[in-house]
Amino acid sequence: MNFDLKTYLKEQQDVVNKHLDNILLQFNNQNQLIQAMAHSLMAGGKRLRPILTMAAALACKKEYSPALPAACAIEMIHTYSLIHDDLPAMDDDDLRRGLPTCHNKFGESTAILAGDALLTHAFNILAEPQILFNKYPDIQKRLQLIAKISKAAGIKGMVQGQILDMQADQGENLSEHSKLKHLEKIHTLKTGKMIIVSVEAGALSVGADQKLIDKLNIYAGKIGLAFQVADDILNIEGDPVKMGKAAGSDIINNKMTFPGIIGLDESKKYANNLIDDAIKAISRFDESAQPLRSIARYIINRDH
Amino acid sequence: MNFDLKTYLKEQQDVVNKHLDNILLQFNNQNQLIQAMAHSLMAGGKRLRPILTMAAALACKKEYSPALPAACAIEMIHTYSLIHDDLPAMDDDDLRRGLPTCHNKFGESTAILAGDALLTHAFNILAEPQILFNKYPDIQKRLQLIAKISKAAGIKGMVQGQILDMQADQGENLSEHSKLKHLEKIHTLKTGKMIIVSVEAGALSVGADQKLIDKLNIYAGKIGLAFQVADDILNIEGDPVKMGKAAGSDIINNKMTFPGIIGLDESKKYANNLIDDAIKAISRFDESAQPLRSIARYIINRDH
Repeated sequence: MNFDLKTYLKEQQDVVNKHLDNILLQFNNQNQLIQAMAHSLMAGGKRLRPILTMAAALACKKEYSPALPAACAIEMIHTYSLIHDDLPAMDDDDLRRGLPTCHNKFGESTAILAGDALLTHAFNILAEPQILFNKYPDIQKRLQLIAKISKAAGIKGMVQGQILDMQADQGENLSEHSKLKHLEKIHTLKTGKMIIVSVEAGALSVGADQKLIDKLNIYAGKIGLAFQVADDILNIEGDPVKMGKAAGSDIINNKMTFPGIIGLDESKKYANNLIDDAIKAISRFDESAQPLRSIARYIINRDH
Repeated sequence: MNFDLKTYLKEQQDVVNKHLDNILLQFNNQNQLIQAMAHSLMAGGKRLRPILTMAAALACKKEYSPALPAACAIEMIHTYSLIHDDLPAMDDDDLRRGLPTCHNKFGESTAILAGDALLTHAFNILAEPQILFNKYPDIQKRLQLIAKISKAAGIKGMVQGQILDMQADQGENLSEHSKLKHLEKIHTLKTGKMIIVSVEAGALSVGADQKLIDKLNIYAGKIGLAFQVADDILNIEGDPVKMGKAAGSDIINNKMTFPGIIGLDESKKYANNLIDDAIKAISRFDESAQPLRSIARYIINRDH
């Protein structure tokens, strides 16, 4: 069959961008808070999470429209997490996606508040139907989406992962095996749970059966971890221009990474195995799952 | 009739504290994130917002239990806003309620994340029934609560108010009337909308009629503004020991305040009139609204 991932990604990015743009257009764009939110939200990210949401909906029910509210909410939460992670008190990054970070351009206090507003509004989008979405899941599903997404983003998910990540240079006395387990735990919390919920939210939005959701959860767990291994590899081998940030920062910052623990070659093998497992988990899906399969490969072959 | 506000407030504070405590007890208390959240959440606040939620439920349907999830969610959002407002990049406060602020005790990055986690988990509590609450509103009402609360806390509510508050020393060329309007706008956004939604959430949680909700919204708008006028007065006349922070900080920080614009006597008159109007708005309610009436008076007669 003829599936062109590049065209698919571009089309889906455009769909996400248009809807995110429309969300912000409901507010006064002369307002500093809106400008700071827009600066980070519309900075040209890959839109991996919302595209996974739409691709999962497509794989289950051959339509993605009902998954768009969840897709946008998830991208807003992802963007809030980047804004807060970049703050001087956290990673203190000046650049993100080749642009000044939010606090670099708008000041620290506005950046903190822009993150807060993105997080808050993400839940508003799922709770309160907006005319800019054609389709909405029913109220029971929307409540379920809020429950799942707030769990993945919160105390036992993304926020906890960020806390552990900041303490992670303390693992120097651990064995290689323990280090690897600890690193996987951090990534499962920091990025894995949000990637899993991105996929699950798509399936939930179109009312998929639990059997399909179970398979998708395996798929998502594998690609989430592979994504992080690939990130660590890119940090060593990537082109700083394409990544929009300097390479080698993990080594400079003494960060715990997969190549740092098991070596570069083993890391590549590990990432490949994870992707093989991910694709195997959804082998029973028909050709509507082609985007999910291609995205899995793309995750470890991307250049930024 | 015999209504003792002091006893009522103490009882309701205990109910709120017990439930907030139980929410945190679901998680590992050795965890730094949980410790930082608990430090600020259990720091002995007045619990004004959740008590308003419960009192509004009582006034409408003579029971407050179904309003407890919303009450706790609102207090968690209030606490997150205090943690972020206290940050060095914002108001840079060392003390809050007589204790070290969250960043002062746990560091800036953990404080930012503790705020993020409280905000995120507030929505989880409304979306995902927890065994620690006996009663829950039905799913339609819970979705409505999330919609209303996320709106009041977000772009056109609390977060926007904080942005405007930080820019508020720029009003020096305005007339007295314009200054007053601007100050009221800031307070309506920064604290008013959350106080209004606190009252409304109580009524919604027990399925009150829209007619009652309309009256309660007038009540809440008036007491919200009166609360802020009273805060400005306390900042001049209050006892630093009871307030847990230094008096006179508004003058030192050159903040726009009600006494600063219309004088201390006029501010007191203004606050009294607002409370009279608030109580008049709920005059048709029966004796179950006695807590709401007494709280209104307390708001301008409190000493901290």
